[in-house]
Order: sequence, then C-alpha cells, then structure tokens
Amino acid sequence: MKGKNFFLQIPLFEGLPEENLSLLRKIAQEKRYPAKTLVFSEGDEATGFYVVISGRVKIFKVSASGKEQILHIFGPGEPFGEVAVFAGMNFPAYAQTLEESHLLYFPRKDFVRLIEQEPSLALNMLAVLSRRLRQFAAMIEALALKEVSERLAAYLLLLAERQGRELVELEINKGQLASLLGTTPETISRVFTRLAREGYVEMEGRRIHLRAKEALQELAAGLRRL
Amino acid sequence: MKGKNFFLQIPLFEGLPEENLSLLRKIAQEKRYPAKTLVFSEGDEATGFYVVISGRVKIFKVSASGKEQILHIFGPGEPFGEVAVFAGMNFPAYAQTLEESHLLYFPRKDFVRLIEQEPSLALNMLAVLSRRLRQFAAMIEALALKEVSERLAAYLLLLAERQGRELVELEINKGQLASLLGTTPETISRVFTRLAREGYVEMEGRRIHLRAKEALQELAAGLRRL
Repeated sequence: MKGKNFFLQIPLFEGLPEENLSLLRKIAQEKRYPAKTLVFSEGDEATGFYVVISGRVKIFKVSASGKEQILHIFGPGEPFGEVAVFAGMNFPAYAQTLEESHLLYFPRKDFVRLIEQEPSLALNMLAVLSRRLRQFAAMIEALALKEVSERLAAYLLLLAERQGRELVELEINKGQLASLLGTTPETISRVFTRLAREGYVEMEGRRIHLRAKEALQELAAGLRRL
Repeated sequence: MKGKNFFLQIPLFEGLPEENLSLLRKIAQEKRYPAKTLVFSEGDEATGFYVVISGRVKIFKVSASGKEQILHIFGPGEPFGEVAVFAGMNFPAYAQTLEESHLLYFPRKDFVRLIEQEPSLALNMLAVLSRRLRQFAAMIEALALKEVSERLAAYLLLLAERQGRELVELEINKGQLASLLGTTPETISRVFTRLAREGYVEMEGRRIHLRAKEALQELAAGLRRL
C-alpha cells in the first residue's frame, strides 16, 4: 500500500507510536477519484474522514444564489472532514477533487471502535493536536510581532513624508497608535525600544528622529529584521 | 466551586456536551498557589495537567549556566502541561506562578479512566482541538497574506525612492522578489493583481507605475487593507 509509509508524513498522526499507527493503517481505505469528483456533500452524515495522499481537494459552500464559496484547498498530508467526524455531526460543506486525487478514508465506526479498544490512541492524538496548537500559537505570535515592527516603520516613514522632515512628531498617544496599527500599547513600546536600541530612531517623548531612513524602509519592506 | 461556570470559558473544552463537562468537573481539583511557587519541575512525571482560573504561570527551562529561558506565560482559561500528560511523558520544563494563582488540576489517571469509560469525551476533545487548529491555520494564512501586501507596498516605495521616480522598474524577477519578501511567486502575483485592480499601481511587464503613493504608504503601515 502506497499509503503505508505515507502515514509517517501525516501531521495529524505525527509522533504516534508504531502500535497506534498500525491500528490506523488497518482501518484506512485507499480511494482514487478523477478530477472534479464530489467526495461528499453538505449535510451528508459524516461517516468517515479523509487524508489526501496526492492531488488536491476543495472544500466549499454554495450560497442561496448558487455562488460557490471556497473555504479551503487541501493537498498531500492534510486531513479533511475530521472535525465533523470527531464531533459526530453532518458535513458542514461540500468536498470536491480539483485534480485526480488519491485519498485515505477512515470510517468513523472503525475509528470509534479503535478508540474504545485502545484509549492510548485517543490520548496520543490529543497530544499531537495539542502540540501543533502550541506551535501554531507561537507562529501567530511571531507573525504578529514581525508585522508590528514592519508597520510601525512604515508609519514613521509616512509621518516623515507628511511632515516633510526626519524629525517627526507623533500626533497621537501610544494607545491610539496601537489601536491604529491593530496591536497593543505594550507591543508598540517593545518595538519602539528595540528600534531605539538598534539605532533606527532616537526618541525624545513624542518627537522621534529617524536616524536610518533607508534601514527603516528595508524594515518596512520585510528585507531586514528587527 | 468557582471553577464550575468557569469550565464554559476554557477553550480546550469549548463546545463539549454537558455530559462530558460534568465528568471533567468531577475529576478537577482546585489548587491555590502563592506568587513565585513552583508548580512542577522539568523531568517530573506528568501526573496531571492544569488550567489557569486566575493568576499567571510561567513555563521555563534553565540552561546549563543557570540562565532562565521563558517559553510561555499562561493566564486565565489556558491549559498547561497537557501535551506531556496526553503523551504520557515527563514534564519537559518548569512551571512557576508569577502571581497568586488559582488553578484547576486534572489528574492523569482519572482523565485516562474517563476516556476509557466514555470514548465520546476523547472524540469530542479531538473535535475541539481539530477545530481550533483549523481556525489557527486560517489566522496564520490571513496574517501572512496581509503581511505580504504590506511588504510589497513598502518594497515598491523603497524602489521609488532609490530610482527617484514613481515609474519603478523591478530589477529582479517574480521568483526572486518572492524569496526576498519571504513568500511564494503565486502570492506575489495575487497581491500584484489586486494592487492593479484597486488602482494602486499600473503594470507594464517589469515597469510599475505607482498611481497612489500615499495610499501605498498607508497600506505599508497597515492603516489601509487591500
């Protein structure tokens, strides 16, 4: 089965002990679909979930006026339908292949039986998902912080251009600036401190000297990191 | 128990049916710790996980030279130690209260027994975590895309400044530009298309007219959305 080694590359199962993986392999069914084939429809009973081995699958809703709204496109290694299956709901959207696709199908009733026989599978999957959630949360935090330094640099350059000089005056307080840039005053303060420490700016209350305009521009463009 | 209604505000348990929640409530123990109290140490057997009711808890490692490295700070509603508990490992780090803290403690052996008796609890928790993972992935995608449009705007302004005019010439191809801005050529193309459609720029192969410089500056500063 092509899917056998493939199991090691599925993030949903990453780090599961071999005895758990072999149970999952036993219940998995390989399915092949031509391009543009409906895998399931909105409202269908969620009798099993899928993992893409190859190909791509789009998940979409259809509005009352018949307009299609794509929610996700999933590719190799990614599961779909699993939330509905775990929660015991009906599928909340349609799934259709975009190209010829090779999928693994995990029937719900077999999966539930496995968990009843072997609770360690559930615990280990909870561990996998909790760990990924932690990683994602860290990634969101890093992206948000990076974003704030880029935006603040761009905002200071915008002020310099508007005020016609490199000694700019903040017209609003830190709280207002934070809400303007979609972040918190604490984050703004942290970024200002680092900008000053690394020589981009010199601060004097609300007056800010832009000491390295070109470097600030590169920061705003993401070509340089704080 | 103060923690009783509090259960509804714990994202780890969000949307669990009442019968699952009442099982969890039965095994939860309330614990109160003064500020700066060690909750567990690195290497301790993970005999249970915690959810913060009030206060704050820092998770940290200590380097060989004795330097403390903070990994996370958790506040109300947030779980900690659950990855180690689900995976049946020892705790990989220290946990210490930063201020007086009120915690819920879920002993591992009781939690495992619950899952054995009631596999629906495991399935529903898998659904909760899968759903949150989906939401986090969507947030990362949105942040990354927003970031790319900000960066591309800032990069075009940087080129305009360097080249001394508002008709700029890309000196590199789209693939190189993508890697410079830390994204993919497809995303760069998508953002260029939207910039052109919304009148920020006019494209002529590698020559780009900046049609709305002030608006591009606001885009770069995150004051305006694409």
